[in-house]
Amino acid sequence: MMTGEQYKASLADGRRTYFQGRVVDDLAAEPRFTRAVEWVAETYDRFFDPSPQARSPLFEVPRSSDDLSTRVPLLRETDIIAQTTFQSLLALLTAAPAVGQADTSYVDRIKAYYEDVVTEDRRLVECITDAKGNRTLAPSQQADPDAYVHVVKRTSEGLVLRGAKLHITGASFAHDLVIMPTKQMKQGEEDYAVACAVPLAAAGVHVVNTTYSPPPGQEADYPFSSRENMPDGFVILDDVFVPHERVFLDGEVQYSANFAHSLGLWERLGGTAFMADEADILVGLAQLVAEANGLASVPHIREKINGMIIYATIIRAGLEAALLNVGRTPDGMVYPSELYTNTAKFYGAANYDHIVRDLHDIAGGAVVTAPSHSDLDHEVLGPWLRKYLSTGPDVPGEERARIMHAIRDFTADTFGGWRSVTNIQSGGGLYAQQMVSRKHYDLKRAKQMARRAAGLDAEE
Amino acid sequence: MMTGEQYKASLADGRRTYFQGRVVDDLAAEPRFTRAVEWVAETYDRFFDPSPQARSPLFEVPRSSDDLSTRVPLLRETDIIAQTTFQSLLALLTAAPAVGQADTSYVDRIKAYYEDVVTEDRRLVECITDAKGNRTLAPSQQADPDAYVHVVKRTSEGLVLRGAKLHITGASFAHDLVIMPTKQMKQGEEDYAVACAVPLAAAGVHVVNTTYSPPPGQEADYPFSSRENMPDGFVILDDVFVPHERVFLDGEVQYSANFAHSLGLWERLGGTAFMADEADILVGLAQLVAEANGLASVPHIREKINGMIIYATIIRAGLEAALLNVGRTPDGMVYPSELYTNTAKFYGAANYDHIVRDLHDIAGGAVVTAPSHSDLDHEVLGPWLRKYLSTGPDVPGEERARIMHAIRDFTADTFGGWRSVTNIQSGGGLYAQQMVSRKHYDLKRAKQMARRAAGLDAEE
Amino acid sequence: MMTGEQYKASLADGRRTYFQGRVVDDLAAEPRFTRAVEWVAETYDRFFDPSPQARSPLFEVPRSSDDLSTRVPLLRETDIIAQTTFQSLLALLTAAPAVGQADTSYVDRIKAYYEDVVTEDRRLVECITDAKGNRTLAPSQQADPDAYVHVVKRTSEGLVLRGAKLHITGASFAHDLVIMPTKQMKQGEEDYAVACAVPLAAAGVHVVNTTYSPPPGQEADYPFSSRENMPDGFVILDDVFVPHERVFLDGEVQYSANFAHSLGLWERLGGTAFMADEADILVGLAQLVAEANGLASVPHIREKINGMIIYATIIRAGLEAALLNVGRTPDGMVYPSELYTNTAKFYGAANYDHIVRDLHDIAGGAVVTAPSHSDLDHEVLGPWLRKYLSTGPDVPGEERARIMHAIRDFTADTFGGWRSVTNIQSGGGLYAQQMVSRKHYDLKRAKQMARRAAGLDAEE
Amino acid sequence: MMTGEQYKASLADGRRTYFQGRVVDDLAAEPRFTRAVEWVAETYDRFFDPSPQARSPLFEVPRSSDDLSTRVPLLRETDIIAQTTFQSLLALLTAAPAVGQADTSYVDRIKAYYEDVVTEDRRLVECITDAKGNRTLAPSQQADPDAYVHVVKRTSEGLVLRGAKLHITGASFAHDLVIMPTKQMKQGEEDYAVACAVPLAAAGVHVVNTTYSPPPGQEADYPFSSRENMPDGFVILDDVFVPHERVFLDGEVQYSANFAHSLGLWERLGGTAFMADEADILVGLAQLVAEANGLASVPHIREKINGMIIYATIIRAGLEAALLNVGRTPDGMVYPSELYTNTAKFYGAANYDHIVRDLHDIAGGAVVTAPSHSDLDHEVLGPWLRKYLSTGPDVPGEERARIMHAIRDFTADTFGGWRSVTNIQSGGGLYAQQMVSRKHYDLKRAKQMARRAAGLDAEE
Repeated sequence: MMTGEQYKASLADGRRTYFQGRVVDDLAAEPRFTRAVEWVAETYDRFFDPSPQARSPLFEVPRSSDDLSTRVPLLRETDIIAQTTFQSLLALLTAAPAVGQADTSYVDRIKAYYEDVVTEDRRLVECITDAKGNRTLAPSQQADPDAYVHVVKRTSEGLVLRGAKLHITGASFAHDLVIMPTKQMKQGEEDYAVACAVPLAAAGVHVVNTTYSPPPGQEADYPFSSRENMPDGFVILDDVFVPHERVFLDGEVQYSANFAHSLGLWERLGGTAFMADEADILVGLAQLVAEANGLASVPHIREKINGMIIYATIIRAGLEAALLNVGRTPDGMVYPSELYTNTAKFYGAANYDHIVRDLHDIAGGAVVTAPSHSDLDHEVLGPWLRKYLSTGPDVPGEERARIMHAIRDFTADTFGGWRSVTNIQSGGGLYAQQMVSRKHYDLKRAKQMARRAAGLDAEE
Repeated sequence: MMTGEQYKASLADGRRTYFQGRVVDDLAAEPRFTRAVEWVAETYDRFFDPSPQARSPLFEVPRSSDDLSTRVPLLRETDIIAQTTFQSLLALLTAAPAVGQADTSYVDRIKAYYEDVVTEDRRLVECITDAKGNRTLAPSQQADPDAYVHVVKRTSEGLVLRGAKLHITGASFAHDLVIMPTKQMKQGEEDYAVACAVPLAAAGVHVVNTTYSPPPGQEADYPFSSRENMPDGFVILDDVFVPHERVFLDGEVQYSANFAHSLGLWERLGGTAFMADEADILVGLAQLVAEANGLASVPHIREKINGMIIYATIIRAGLEAALLNVGRTPDGMVYPSELYTNTAKFYGAANYDHIVRDLHDIAGGAVVTAPSHSDLDHEVLGPWLRKYLSTGPDVPGEERARIMHAIRDFTADTFGGWRSVTNIQSGGGLYAQQMVSRKHYDLKRAKQMARRAAGLDAEE
Repeated sequence: MMTGEQYKASLADGRRTYFQGRVVDDLAAEPRFTRAVEWVAETYDRFFDPSPQARSPLFEVPRSSDDLSTRVPLLRETDIIAQTTFQSLLALLTAAPAVGQADTSYVDRIKAYYEDVVTEDRRLVECITDAKGNRTLAPSQQADPDAYVHVVKRTSEGLVLRGAKLHITGASFAHDLVIMPTKQMKQGEEDYAVACAVPLAAAGVHVVNTTYSPPPGQEADYPFSSRENMPDGFVILDDVFVPHERVFLDGEVQYSANFAHSLGLWERLGGTAFMADEADILVGLAQLVAEANGLASVPHIREKINGMIIYATIIRAGLEAALLNVGRTPDGMVYPSELYTNTAKFYGAANYDHIVRDLHDIAGGAVVTAPSHSDLDHEVLGPWLRKYLSTGPDVPGEERARIMHAIRDFTADTFGGWRSVTNIQSGGGLYAQQMVSRKHYDLKRAKQMARRAAGLDAEE
Repeated sequence: MMTGEQYKASLADGRRTYFQGRVVDDLAAEPRFTRAVEWVAETYDRFFDPSPQARSPLFEVPRSSDDLSTRVPLLRETDIIAQTTFQSLLALLTAAPAVGQADTSYVDRIKAYYEDVVTEDRRLVECITDAKGNRTLAPSQQADPDAYVHVVKRTSEGLVLRGAKLHITGASFAHDLVIMPTKQMKQGEEDYAVACAVPLAAAGVHVVNTTYSPPPGQEADYPFSSRENMPDGFVILDDVFVPHERVFLDGEVQYSANFAHSLGLWERLGGTAFMADEADILVGLAQLVAEANGLASVPHIREKINGMIIYATIIRAGLEAALLNVGRTPDGMVYPSELYTNTAKFYGAANYDHIVRDLHDIAGGAVVTAPSHSDLDHEVLGPWLRKYLSTGPDVPGEERARIMHAIRDFTADTFGGWRSVTNIQSGGGLYAQQMVSRKHYDLKRAKQMARRAAGLDAEE
């Protein structure tokens, strides 16, 4: 296993990563990336075990509902790319039985890769979304053949890939890209039916970063995003070579969607678990600010908080139902209920905006106008600001300002905007999430129930 | 145990029950009550076991999460007053430990009553809601002291009660009224803090019925309500004597709300289980009518059905979470999670109207204008109506008319209106349901999560 | 002009109309139709003017925004088929300029028909919706060619029609059916591109009725639907002859949708005006029942009523904006804004269910369990029911029961169900209503505004 | 009148203003304030007329519905503090008749002040919200008497004020603060019942700024907020002297709320007009991004845009109804309908979040992950990014990136967060906005309509 320091050292592997039009040679030294590196390192240190055979408990294969139910909150305490590592590994293992029907060597490679990753304690990011070009045309019909990642050359040693993968959270901070087809490929699109693992340091990989990390020097005004932030990567694959042993699918179009479906499940499980905690935090912030404003007993504010409690509890109920109604692969790995996972994810994403609206309504305009810490620390201004921000002896002005900063950072500033978009988009947009629920809902049974209840069919 | 016939015979016990300004001497002979009597009798017959020691499996005390999870769907297959019997008995048993602190004889009487009811296979209805008079005044401050049921006299043998209980579904069709205080009583309201069981046949009990059962002769146009209907009773207690052994609380105001809270939980569990099935039926009806209209693949219709699926699945997830996170009384009886039960109940009730709107939007105006069965059976009209109601060789006109009738009956006629009101009101109205969720949500923990996440408190 | 008595006499013209599988020879004598006949007659009497040249002010062509703004509330005070007469006439006149391009004699016939109707004071119903058969196939591709009304024969005197028209409110109570194509017809569907007027008494016309009028004898429990009800007709055209002078389109497929679009506008204007008043009535009922329950000052109830006020005011604002932003035909007839009319109609229909939910939540279970008038009139029961339904000296029990009956009748019984369906379906279902708004919204301008605001284009 | 240059020079008047813990001596030189100064100057230049008697057309008193209807869009084209100047002046004039009942000299002072402001072409900001301390206590009961702005001394020349005013948009960029009581004061709170105008340069005035202007150097990535931004001020009044001629209320508590009510109306009118345009821009952005993504014809995306069109049209209808149903003061000034203004404002604010959610759902994750302009300009990255961001020959990658930047800036970054909070809070939060609608809705008439419709009262 790796320590945090070993992780940091591992990043100096020649990867080509960019920010704001500049090459970033040392990730930890780029002010707006420093914290992301540190965050990943903290997870390494927390789970480090010096014994040579040690393996991270984060990535063990779940074998029971209980196992899964304890893993999910454990992962919630780690950095984002520990979570994407888990999701990527489990997605590969979940898809393995299917792709093994095309070629059993894919299964062997996936298992070997899993062993290598866990043994070497590497971090992975999941690379699904292609550039896509014209959305109404198939990959093979695009004006630009590179609109979807594809094989441009095959050699005796492996494949050469070209294309781009977008919205890859943490790409610059992981060791490997786990590349999967973004959708079902068709006959004639064999070159697009490719899944594999590619090191960040591989020649031809370039990552352009964007981030919601706060402006350097103003971290105190951004209590959430200064502690937990992870840049997104726009990954360019400029004729990247991949050796055979890291190729998990090459040309068998009929299995091309299995990876995406498997990943979708694990990604949405992570999203649902995140949303369940996020919802509790939103409830907590609402109650904190209502109390700080001295308005916690005002009926319409109580009722808004009650509505937020319902929201948080529904997501939690969906998560529980998903973790208790597990499925099981032939070799004993368990996975959560598709139906409940997707439904809870959809519900959380579709109603998130409304919950934030209520939080803003409860909190008031100070969410966006509370003076900064540097103002609060100013010799002349500080006492005045504290005086006027206080709502009574129990509520110091600075505490109230900090609650407002927290709400702004979490819901009404760069990080808040990033979250409102990614809550909806992770798992494929609201429409796709709803469709997955439909796919796993027993519509036939519902029709039978309706026919019997309506007297169209006799009762059994 | 009783057979259906024995049940029917048992109703001829002198009870005073009214309908449309008339006394009803023979319930089964009143055309709009006939089916309700039959429905209750069917449950008797279904579970009848001739052995002398036999007891209905419906009313056994649940001892495990599994036990509860199998009981709930079993009860869903019975008539309404089998369900209210279950809820009443469980509510008494759930409240027993608390009221036992006032007087252990209450516990003994509750247990004895439970045994008697189960042994004699009697049916009970739960009587909570009082007339209430002026809602802003306490029971003891009312202009009319009878606005809440209260003790008007105490004798050496028992109590004499006066007042009214409203919205008592099935009152005229049960054997006993289980009377409980509708809310917390205060010092000085001892006469209002009374819980007991009263036979329908007791002198002074009068029940005025209302019903959504269909007009006699038109049953075919009302496929739901012609099969499952149960009149509501407005129960008047005109100085009714109750012997001590049937009194479960008399004057200990501090325990007066325990019955209502206990009943609320079991009632809302029943409501949630009902809504979960109802939601599946609504999905099924939507898909049936979309197919019958030939529009099942139209995008906006598919999307509306997807939304209905999400609704149905959220209620189901809440029910599952409630049945899996059970609580346990000292003597080993299990009860569902208050938090999840209430949240699912609230969500189902609060969004029901919207689901029905989508069903109506999908189905079209024929929901309310489809000709009746007597028109379809008319020699001249029938062939025309069948021809013009058909949407193709696979969809006979009569089948489509029947689907429309089913949707009208279920959602857009007398029974539909009754359900839209009672979905909201059972369990106390939307506000009360939300408040119970809040009460059982861990708000303190949410505030701690928020404080830590916002950096206001250090992580542990 | 006609008096009410003359109107009643005019119905004895040999029309073939049916109810519950029976022929109805005398409409006024059918208990569940009596009130509908009376209602139409009342409008006749109210506007009757004995002078020979008199014409109803209801049907004059509106020439200004003010004119239209006073007409709309005037029509709101009449019976439904006075309103459909207005809508049918205005739809024909609005479509006339377009169909005149095909053949100017259509314009002459429309104008002549308008004069005849107004002079003879006849009543019309609008017949749009066909049986439609398989919705995914065009009229000419149906297995049954009669799925859409079409010409089956042309003679030197006129046309012969076959087919059915559905959801025709008041069909049996009018003098003429105004028949229009339900949608745009295509090349090869000339026989389906037919618009004309047909007397109810014409040979081959059959109408099957459905109604939400209350059960005879229980009118007192149905305060709304006992006063204003109008049966819907399922109209069968069994080879009906139409003379040329009543044919307004025959075969010119390119103009086939003009009638439906014109009618849609006037129909939705009527729907919006109705919804605006209906919304005020719902607000009023909510406030009445909140006061009767003694709960008008409870915060969550006040807030629900506030939400209802917002709903009512938005519809009213849309109606005002529609009536003030009128369009004008070449010959000076004004018509309301398509954009605002449709938007208000859509908003009102899409949110109606939610407003009713809040009304039910405010009112309580007594909406469906309040005893009937015959119970209240019962010698023994009456005093008890009045006592227990009263909420204080200012609120007699009977008054409170009547408010509950009104809410039930208006929103939670047969009439309420009919309204919840027709609110959505009149004007073509929610999807169609939204599409019409889109069609009339200036999307190009919105894109320009967005491009400029986003700095993509320079400001002008 | 002033030119833009004269305006800029006028800011060097010794005002004490702060940002990020630093004093800002030259507003235009502070990088994150430069644009705000320029924006205000542009309005000055646009309306400048060198003739000595010239007055800005922006601030003339509206005398007719037409006048008001043309003024509103004109103001929409100006900077924010031109708008607050208009709102402040109109609020004073609207309140004048009422406060004139206390002392006619207040009316004279308001009119003189209006003349001075218009003649000198000054800019004003409206100062309503106090620090408020404990919200459950009245101003006079606060632990800190300065929680509400109040008179601490009266001299023969004027008053001395102490306290703070919060959320004052543009405070540092205007000439005068127009100070008004935030709510109705009561007997004993005479010192808090004070309205007046105070120059920014007055001794004792301090303003702490916060801003959503973009990071300097990255303006290209923030197309909205780089062009239109205005810092908010936290205004501290540290014993500020106000001469009598600028005092518009001093101690007459019964008139203390008139200013806030008058300002509220004009402020919400401005808010509604802003939202109407904003909604069109959101529709436009949605359509632009749907087209850029090649998905404009996908049904669920079309339907979301249709929903946004309904939203935009309802706000516009409300604005039109407000401008057409004007009220009129005794001296002929017109003001918009309170009912429609508030209702449209409430509706826009309450549903804004949902519209943004749909925009994000339509746009996709690139809203937050689109690379920056500096990346697009990078020699190596630029061509790759353009290639992979393009969705076809008609959609250059850079154009699509710019649309994504625009959406992020407008809705999912610092400016977007500021807007989502201020949309709700301007006009006092959702609850207050709804209450104002209720106050101006004719609830008595609604009850009468309901009683008549329900047959409780006879028709007139």
